[in-house]
Amino acid sequence: MAVRWPRGFRSAAAAAGIKSGGELDFALLATEAPAPWAGAFTRNAAAAPCVTWSRGLLGKPVRALSVNSGNANCCTGGQGQEAVVSTARAVAGEVGCSPDEVLVASTGPIGVPLRVELLLDAVPALVGSVAADATPFARAILTTDTVIKTSEAVLDGASIAGVAKGAAMIQPNMATMLAFITTDAQVPAESMQPAFERVVARTFNRISVDACESTNDSAFLLSTGLGARVAPGDFEHALQSVCADLAGQIVRDAEGGTRVVRIAVSGAPNEQAALRLGRAVAASTLWRAAAHGGDPNWGRVVSALGSADSSLDLGALEVNIGGEAVFTRGEPRASCAKVAAAMRADEFTVECVVGAGRAAAEILSCDLSPAYVRLNAGGTT
Amino acid sequence: MAVRWPRGFRSAAAAAGIKSGGELDFALLATEAPAPWAGAFTRNAAAAPCVTWSRGLLGKPVRALSVNSGNANCCTGGQGQEAVVSTARAVAGEVGCSPDEVLVASTGPIGVPLRVELLLDAVPALVGSVAADATPFARAILTTDTVIKTSEAVLDGASIAGVAKGAAMIQPNMATMLAFITTDAQVPAESMQPAFERVVARTFNRISVDACESTNDSAFLLSTGLGARVAPGDFEHALQSVCADLAGQIVRDAEGGTRVVRIAVSGAPNEQAALRLGRAVAASTLWRAAAHGGDPNWGRVVSALGSADSSLDLGALEVNIGGEAVFTRGEPRASCAKVAAAMRADEFTVECVVGAGRAAAEILSCDLSPAYVRLNAGGTT
Repeated sequence: MAVRWPRGFRSAAAAAGIKSGGELDFALLATEAPAPWAGAFTRNAAAAPCVTWSRGLLGKPVRALSVNSGNANCCTGGQGQEAVVSTARAVAGEVGCSPDEVLVASTGPIGVPLRVELLLDAVPALVGSVAADATPFARAILTTDTVIKTSEAVLDGASIAGVAKGAAMIQPNMATMLAFITTDAQVPAESMQPAFERVVARTFNRISVDACESTNDSAFLLSTGLGARVAPGDFEHALQSVCADLAGQIVRDAEGGTRVVRIAVSGAPNEQAALRLGRAVAASTLWRAAAHGGDPNWGRVVSALGSADSSLDLGALEVNIGGEAVFTRGEPRASCAKVAAAMRADEFTVECVVGAGRAAAEILSCDLSPAYVRLNAGGTT
Repeated sequence: MAVRWPRGFRSAAAAAGIKSGGELDFALLATEAPAPWAGAFTRNAAAAPCVTWSRGLLGKPVRALSVNSGNANCCTGGQGQEAVVSTARAVAGEVGCSPDEVLVASTGPIGVPLRVELLLDAVPALVGSVAADATPFARAILTTDTVIKTSEAVLDGASIAGVAKGAAMIQPNMATMLAFITTDAQVPAESMQPAFERVVARTFNRISVDACESTNDSAFLLSTGLGARVAPGDFEHALQSVCADLAGQIVRDAEGGTRVVRIAVSGAPNEQAALRLGRAVAASTLWRAAAHGGDPNWGRVVSALGSADSSLDLGALEVNIGGEAVFTRGEPRASCAKVAAAMRADEFTVECVVGAGRAAAEILSCDLSPAYVRLNAGGTT
């Protein structure tokens, strides 16, 4: 679905030659005027220099954002750091702003030197061709993703549009993957960061493809304020719907994934405990392989829960898969044929009712397929 | 390789009918006289009732140990708890001891009701046929293992013999999988548990097949004391060699594993930090898939390290794969062809020199193959 940026944003994309096949691999988002923004970044200690750069710009309005795919420019040493600065400088020169008004993001393989001259050469044409259509931008940020990921929400006199990319190395911690959310809603600049952090915590940070945290996870929210004034609650609600939509699209397009598995934990003593339990199930390669085959091996769910919380009370635990009770108060309730049928759907839910409190949380995960292993077993991606 | 039990131990195995194919699935180890023992058990909160039972017997000498494969008897409710007690009673009746002198272990799928009558029927013949050969016992405890796992050490006038099983759901936390270590060495009973805990922490607890912690992990050390008196240091040294040998055999026979990957972390601030870093690499499905394909994607190693320790200093980090430096002080040093060749060996080492201290630790892990996923995608194992 084609998405247009909100008022005051324009973008363009180019095939700069970073990807070998001539696909789009470099994109620019520009704003009409300095735009307040919020960001959420990976907590990985091996964060890429573009993450460090963009994080360092938090608190000051920006004019542009450039992103390349096909190379994460991470673990690339001093040369990688210089590449970020020279990209920001080149974009700033064309846009007519200061380099510290240019956000930078990268995604792709780690540890491969970035041929930054390819990006620098592409900057003038890129800045010269910006338009309101977000689709080329959404396409240029993909790596092994098979479809573009976009979402929008319409507010009274303003809108929110977001694009994202995912695929693998998806276990967000703080932010996740790459997501670019834009709005023209007039929202107080100082409220953007806390609102974005709350929303990211409830959306992107609650998905897991392979429990592998990326070095380049970044989510950005930029606002031009050219639209209507919107009540903070309404804005956060719309922002949440866009981010949740994009997060779901990432899981549905997970590398090698064939179905979405919603892990719904409830009855936990607190939300953190619920999240820890849900993430343990989402990270279990044994359970994810069973989910791939539609094998109702719910013992692997219980085992994952038990490994994540040593105080788990089996006698109070209830596990339902696809609406079927499989384990209740210490006793198996398996009706394997029904459960297996439910597990063969494109999406199914594993409910884990812990019986230790009132807190709940959901993690959106996917199955583990032989295709995921094959995709990641060769040809440094 | 055939292994004989040390003096004072005898064992037998039977096909009780728990496994559908008529394979050996029930085994008994008996001691001539009450034997002091030590144990290490899973910390999983969903521990099987046999784990709870055996752990409850710690501190008192035992006369027998029974173990079945083909069913973990875990998450099987009150019926599962009764099955443990009735098995211990049946064995005690035939051996001529008290039920609380009988250790019980189980391995196999979780959540499937155990047909305990099959075990009870088999007990008399089992007790009546015990012999010094450990091979049938070693075979009867296997699940998806493809080979038996045995090891022995000869001391001056005494010996240690051990058998184990592994395959999948291998991420030990305290103990691991099933391991049965026997000795006739005269060692002070009170020294056995601390020595065993130290050795288990350094051997079984340093392997990982799939980062999935089992509900039934149990390791037992039993001593008859019918051999010579052995200095505690010599005994622990020999015990360590047997346990390390068995732990290595488990990783080499990992479900779907095609090569062993030794993750050697050094320069860590303390041993716990070194272990956390090593386990993070061993648990990375992305890195393990690359290891399967012989793809020198060392960025996934750095990313896993960075996700496990937010204070990791990339500028001080050094990563070598198969003896080749790939990343040193923030800069890539890739010589991909050489690294790829090293990764195609049956075993290779990933050295991670953290540059933050003097502590070191190794985790023995394996690759992730499409075969692992296929094995675990169907037919509840």
